[in-house]
Amino acid sequence: MPKAKEVIVGVDLGGTSLRALAVNQKNEILAMEKTPTNARQRPAGLIADIAEVVEEAVRAAGLKMRDIRAVSVGIPGPTDPVQGIVHKAPNLGWHEVPVVRQLKALLHVPVLVDNDVHVGAVGEHMLGAGRGAQDLVGIFVGTGIGGAIISKGRLFDGSTGSAGEIGHTVLMVDGPVCGCGHRGCVEALASRTAMERDVRAAIKKGHKSIVLKIMKETHHVRMTSSIVARALKKNDKVMRKVMKTAQHYLGILAANLVNVLDPECVVIGGGITERLGEEFVGPIRDTAHEYFLRPKDIHRVKIVGGRLGDNAGALGAVVLARQRLGRY
Amino acid sequence: MPKAKEVIVGVDLGGTSLRALAVNQKNEILAMEKTPTNARQRPAGLIADIAEVVEEAVRAAGLKMRDIRAVSVGIPGPTDPVQGIVHKAPNLGWHEVPVVRQLKALLHVPVLVDNDVHVGAVGEHMLGAGRGAQDLVGIFVGTGIGGAIISKGRLFDGSTGSAGEIGHTVLMVDGPVCGCGHRGCVEALASRTAMERDVRAAIKKGHKSIVLKIMKETHHVRMTSSIVARALKKNDKVMRKVMKTAQHYLGILAANLVNVLDPECVVIGGGITERLGEEFVGPIRDTAHEYFLRPKDIHRVKIVGGRLGDNAGALGAVVLARQRLGRY
Repeated sequence: MPKAKEVIVGVDLGGTSLRALAVNQKNEILAMEKTPTNARQRPAGLIADIAEVVEEAVRAAGLKMRDIRAVSVGIPGPTDPVQGIVHKAPNLGWHEVPVVRQLKALLHVPVLVDNDVHVGAVGEHMLGAGRGAQDLVGIFVGTGIGGAIISKGRLFDGSTGSAGEIGHTVLMVDGPVCGCGHRGCVEALASRTAMERDVRAAIKKGHKSIVLKIMKETHHVRMTSSIVARALKKNDKVMRKVMKTAQHYLGILAANLVNVLDPECVVIGGGITERLGEEFVGPIRDTAHEYFLRPKDIHRVKIVGGRLGDNAGALGAVVLARQRLGRY
Repeated sequence: MPKAKEVIVGVDLGGTSLRALAVNQKNEILAMEKTPTNARQRPAGLIADIAEVVEEAVRAAGLKMRDIRAVSVGIPGPTDPVQGIVHKAPNLGWHEVPVVRQLKALLHVPVLVDNDVHVGAVGEHMLGAGRGAQDLVGIFVGTGIGGAIISKGRLFDGSTGSAGEIGHTVLMVDGPVCGCGHRGCVEALASRTAMERDVRAAIKKGHKSIVLKIMKETHHVRMTSSIVARALKKNDKVMRKVMKTAQHYLGILAANLVNVLDPECVVIGGGITERLGEEFVGPIRDTAHEYFLRPKDIHRVKIVGGRLGDNAGALGAVVLARQRLGRY
């Protein structure tokens, strides 16, 4: 039985699913609960859903809410961890939501919040692929591309808690239009959204591909990571070519970050890594090595895939909460 | 008369001149000495020159070497501040030079070393354009483009002391070839070297420009910052266009860094800033604002020109030494 007040519940509020882990001080997962994210409701409804999943996880761990030290939530968008506010979560339709205050009112325990990529990187750093590194960069490739920096063992959060927006670094001046309105952001070059755009464009041009067929068969309107993986397994030429190009850009992004931030380790996380592993990470690493400014970094800086999969965010939220409790 | 052991001598070893400042605890400059850098001699000869200029500055301040707390040197290239080694200083022909040990043997006081851009940024942060900011990025535009990050008031040096190599972030995949061998680095797009290449190319294509004439008249083989300034003053169209393009790229670079690092302030330093001031910085700022991901950053993040001019490096070396003495 875990000691009272040593358990923290980590929550990962993703665009498609909402997951809560009850985690003890040894970072062992005592219970996991999840539910689909219902993003169509107002923030208050979704916050009530979070509270419910947290309570279920606590029950499943054989505990009561009064045994819980804190609840720590990762949110897909820029947050203010000190004020406890989500500035913007486009996939949820949130704008300046005081999530900490609202969750506290429902759960009556301390609540912390941060960005999903920040907590994911903290998770991989402390418990996953980045263990042992003091200075680390996380690159999370999904619908968008998110990033996080760990420096001297702690999250580098910048002057307003928003550091790490690597998805919107311009890598190709005058390149393709990005969702943010600019041109040539790495997100417009190498995210799953960019890959889907390029696959559709190639098909429109007459290239043969089974991607749309797989999407139809599996009732998907978007090219998810599992569809990418299936198409590659069936050696779909369009998918292969699009993937190779994206990996090239991600390799240059990784090298840019290594040259500027001088870390020991780069963790490539997100759904595609989870499906493809080294098949995804290997070519990114090869290109990064080409673009390293300091040749010794080829042997020194590890570029590895994330290891915690879907649990990275919730586990990282727990670790970050432990680091922060007492600080504010 | 300054108290014994409170004076530190800061040295900026530039490609063209070597400068030493004797600085008291209030960061007042007691004396300044400089001499041309004779880079053709072996490292030991140049290190003897450093020792000599330091001793002259100390004498000029009315002090003796035994009154000096430390000598702190900024070097144009990657260094290891902990081991006291210069890994590489291409303009000096240095490779793995144990400058700290060698200078100590001549001066018999503690010696510290770091990269010239690192110390320049620390100088601007503590005593110049970045005063009051806790989180700052320095962009130094000259022959190359160097950078430095200040986080929570201290130099962010990465895992090996080499953080900040922003000159070799790729901004334009498959862009022009850079000195480092890659394509599309910002240094190949917007350094003074890149500007000179573009001016020469435009002239070769038949565009009229007075740049080469000014260089000839002033006996310069390279397009220095003062030549850039003169050509702009005479409204040279080629120079104007090349400058405008470089400023556009530097603006995107600044925005990339703001989006990733979330600082309060960006200081644009180096020779061109010193000659042109706001004429150089203004358009960089305008483009950066366009590319900011967080609109509130337009009002929050200052983008300003350096204020310390040629003294930034030596003054920063003094400040950095004060921060580090006692640490190693």
